[in-house]
Amino acid sequence: MPVLLAPDQALSLPDLLSAANTVGLDYRLICSREDSMPMIAGIGSLLSAGAHEISFLSNPKLSSQLEASQAAAIILREQDWQAYQAADHSDAPAWCVVVCSQPYLMYALLAQWFDHHRVMGLSRGIHPTAVLAEDAQIGEGVSIGPFTVIEAGVRIGAGTRIGSGCSIGPGASIGRDGIVYARVTLYHNVTIGDRTILHSGVVLGADGFGLAPNPFGEAGAWAKIAQLGGVVLGDDVEIGANTTVDRGAIEDTVIGNGVKLDNQIMIGHNCRVGDHTAIAACVGIAGSTHIGQRCTIGGAALLSGHLVIGDDVHISGGTSVTSNVLEPGRYTGVFPFFRHDLWQRNAAVIAQLSQLRKRLRSLEKTDNT
Amino acid sequence: MPVLLAPDQALSLPDLLSAANTVGLDYRLICSREDSMPMIAGIGSLLSAGAHEISFLSNPKLSSQLEASQAAAIILREQDWQAYQAADHSDAPAWCVVVCSQPYLMYALLAQWFDHHRVMGLSRGIHPTAVLAEDAQIGEGVSIGPFTVIEAGVRIGAGTRIGSGCSIGPGASIGRDGIVYARVTLYHNVTIGDRTILHSGVVLGADGFGLAPNPFGEAGAWAKIAQLGGVVLGDDVEIGANTTVDRGAIEDTVIGNGVKLDNQIMIGHNCRVGDHTAIAACVGIAGSTHIGQRCTIGGAALLSGHLVIGDDVHISGGTSVTSNVLEPGRYTGVFPFFRHDLWQRNAAVIAQLSQLRKRLRSLEKTDNT
Amino acid sequence: MPVLLAPDQALSLPDLLSAANTVGLDYRLICSREDSMPMIAGIGSLLSAGAHEISFLSNPKLSSQLEASQAAAIILREQDWQAYQAADHSDAPAWCVVVCSQPYLMYALLAQWFDHHRVMGLSRGIHPTAVLAEDAQIGEGVSIGPFTVIEAGVRIGAGTRIGSGCSIGPGASIGRDGIVYARVTLYHNVTIGDRTILHSGVVLGADGFGLAPNPFGEAGAWAKIAQLGGVVLGDDVEIGANTTVDRGAIEDTVIGNGVKLDNQIMIGHNCRVGDHTAIAACVGIAGSTHIGQRCTIGGAALLSGHLVIGDDVHISGGTSVTSNVLEPGRYTGVFPFFRHDLWQRNAAVIAQLSQLRKRLRSLEKTDNT
Repeated sequence: MPVLLAPDQALSLPDLLSAANTVGLDYRLICSREDSMPMIAGIGSLLSAGAHEISFLSNPKLSSQLEASQAAAIILREQDWQAYQAADHSDAPAWCVVVCSQPYLMYALLAQWFDHHRVMGLSRGIHPTAVLAEDAQIGEGVSIGPFTVIEAGVRIGAGTRIGSGCSIGPGASIGRDGIVYARVTLYHNVTIGDRTILHSGVVLGADGFGLAPNPFGEAGAWAKIAQLGGVVLGDDVEIGANTTVDRGAIEDTVIGNGVKLDNQIMIGHNCRVGDHTAIAACVGIAGSTHIGQRCTIGGAALLSGHLVIGDDVHISGGTSVTSNVLEPGRYTGVFPFFRHDLWQRNAAVIAQLSQLRKRLRSLEKTDNT
Repeated sequence: MPVLLAPDQALSLPDLLSAANTVGLDYRLICSREDSMPMIAGIGSLLSAGAHEISFLSNPKLSSQLEASQAAAIILREQDWQAYQAADHSDAPAWCVVVCSQPYLMYALLAQWFDHHRVMGLSRGIHPTAVLAEDAQIGEGVSIGPFTVIEAGVRIGAGTRIGSGCSIGPGASIGRDGIVYARVTLYHNVTIGDRTILHSGVVLGADGFGLAPNPFGEAGAWAKIAQLGGVVLGDDVEIGANTTVDRGAIEDTVIGNGVKLDNQIMIGHNCRVGDHTAIAACVGIAGSTHIGQRCTIGGAALLSGHLVIGDDVHISGGTSVTSNVLEPGRYTGVFPFFRHDLWQRNAAVIAQLSQLRKRLRSLEKTDNT
Repeated sequence: MPVLLAPDQALSLPDLLSAANTVGLDYRLICSREDSMPMIAGIGSLLSAGAHEISFLSNPKLSSQLEASQAAAIILREQDWQAYQAADHSDAPAWCVVVCSQPYLMYALLAQWFDHHRVMGLSRGIHPTAVLAEDAQIGEGVSIGPFTVIEAGVRIGAGTRIGSGCSIGPGASIGRDGIVYARVTLYHNVTIGDRTILHSGVVLGADGFGLAPNPFGEAGAWAKIAQLGGVVLGDDVEIGANTTVDRGAIEDTVIGNGVKLDNQIMIGHNCRVGDHTAIAACVGIAGSTHIGQRCTIGGAALLSGHLVIGDDVHISGGTSVTSNVLEPGRYTGVFPFFRHDLWQRNAAVIAQLSQLRKRLRSLEKTDNT
């Protein structure tokens, strides 16, 4: 599992490999019964793949699973295949062998092929219930799902697919060959590059959290700072479910090319995220923080506002970053966890830490006298 | 408050108790005017319940509120009723007495009855604006709200209610007697058991965060690992508003029977959550982590990926779990909070902790010489 | 940038200032060519504003940017204008000068004017695809977007605008002059004051997380406590994208007047948030916690349940609050972050903290003997 194609859609192993191998990887096919290549309808792990599925060995530690695998074919490296043959197996394997220098990359290409096949099977065209402004510019081959609203001045590039129940605000622009899943909101004037993937529940361009004390209101009352900037996304960006990116106060909030954002991330107004930075789920980035290129930020990390994070910085999950980080490297600030009783004991000492240091200093003085 | 029934829908106290008491709890009814049982239209706390509402005493510490209560009836234990009578009250209470060994459970049954009554009053049937694929299999008594889209191959079990603006993707399956509130997304091939409750904004089956370095792209560019697995939910699962559960890479992401998830939780791809585990709001669980049965996880806790958490493990809110937890028990890792000035003093010492230990060791050596 | 008005909509500088200045701020206009006042179509920062945009100097540290600014007009304080003149500039500035005692407030008023202008340009009225219950009470000048569902008994005050794809549940009530963006859900009986702004993905009134052990189920099974209370919002509340506020168990969850909530906040059942309290993104507040007036809570802070937080309490971002905070002031509990290797060294010592204290005490005793 999963079986991804109906039986009559299954491809022969050589056909599938050549269809999926868009980058031209070298590989060699060894089947004991070369006259009858297996038909492949899906992809699975070594232990779950069945008679019409292909599998792969990318981690040599799992090579002990090869013998029992019921897969129709297995992708593995030359050295792993030789090691398998060198071991004492009673028979040649029932599975076909795909010897390849990069099994994980071949798997990734196959997975992309199967998913692309699924997407291509979805209905196309503009659903009759969709509401399109008269002046919207819709490119060739665009699909728009039921109950999606496309407001005035919107532009959508060729080949982009928009699911059901989306709201694309006035003046928004989406590049070509993108996928926007169901129930995504783009506020007015949000601009998105090519080949972007937006998952359900994404909200781009809601107002940033801009407040100032209201000198004419009750004590403590806030005045709203209207948010006039936009959100600009580069090409090849993917954004996970229920993630939000707020519009800028005056300037735009900017997400660079190739940036990957997981689910339930919050990116505040006027932030900038550099090209190819990847951010895991539940991260919060407060307003006006600028993050460099090729960074990674672990899940549920928190970045304060108005910070500068340089290129190639890696923040561990759960870390609260409260000051600039300009040097590349990995940064962490996670309080260790314990059995509850042990935690209580250690947490209590933390309240006395500066006292503890004083006592240590005073002892050191005594000792030196 | 809240008053839940219109005056002409109110039930007499004995009728309500017998209607709600689906599990057959023992109880005894004592009213000073037995000829005229009160009509009950709602439920309230001891101090807020009015002349047509029932209340309950489950925490004996609140028994001082009994005398002033304006409730029509109060559920309480035998011993609390006797203690009330033993105290020096001028008159018999104006409220009827429902003596019951489990007042909180009786309250829970009444609350369920009132809520069930509300749900039963909602409109039924398939709204004419809903878009249903021709081959969708819709069970008896199913309700589907306006602007909901049911894609090809979907199956929905008898009695399930789906709100407005939902998107149920191709091949998804929902069991019987479930409630899906407005604006829920199920991606393709998501499978859900019976009696499931999904709140607004839930997204099940968006792509997991699967990335690999792209050897053919710019420096730092990522290749997407297409996510081919599904999401499988057991029976009796409840999922809170805006929670997301991602689909697996190859295998499914699996949520067991009776699992309760609060709002804004993120469950990564290939996770497994065991039966009857309850997870509070804002928790993030990174990919491939397996959680046992009957666990509880407090709000905003964070679990790293590829972990194993055993059965009956209880994680305190706010804890970052970064390694396996195989033994049952309670685990905590929350940094204590302080007035800001005191925090600054202690946080500064943390940066010198390993130094501090060195100095202590060196003092100990001096002392021992 | 941003240019917010089409060229034919641009206002002359004096007209714009008097239109935006709703509170009657004093200001003085100085233009070198008073016969030809500039036409203003937008607003920008000192360095980004162009020939038809106004800018402002609120932070004197940026006064070095004045000379190079291409803005049509700049708002600044008397002392900053005099300092500019006192410096050795070859020419009078090309920009008009708006001398004003509160430049930031004048900017806020202008930004509000531009945003109000945008909103006023949106289409009005009730879209023909919206589904309205027959007994819904819709005030004068209300706008309702496509595919929005208004259930039985709903009341919407005059002038309120509701976007597309919203679900307004039975008995819900929204005050006047509010803005509800696309894809917002209000469950049944949620009540909202005047001038409220709700951003996309907000869910108000989903069930609180109420569970009790189910004595009739499997070991570990949970019984749902039906949530019968409501959610009540005061006037002038703003709620950010994908934030959720759960309904109360019996009593209501209450959000006071002027409260500002950022994105992806979770407020549990039966919480109360006092007037003018502002809460940054990703904060989680567990059930039944009461927060006072004029508090601020930083991003991703976590408040445990059943706490009391007094008035004028300020919680730093990332802090886990686990006990009552009754005294005004700022409170923090954030673990410092380090380069990963240094973190490892210090985190390891935390596991030995209580041991460390013991060793220190024993040394102190030795020393005193």
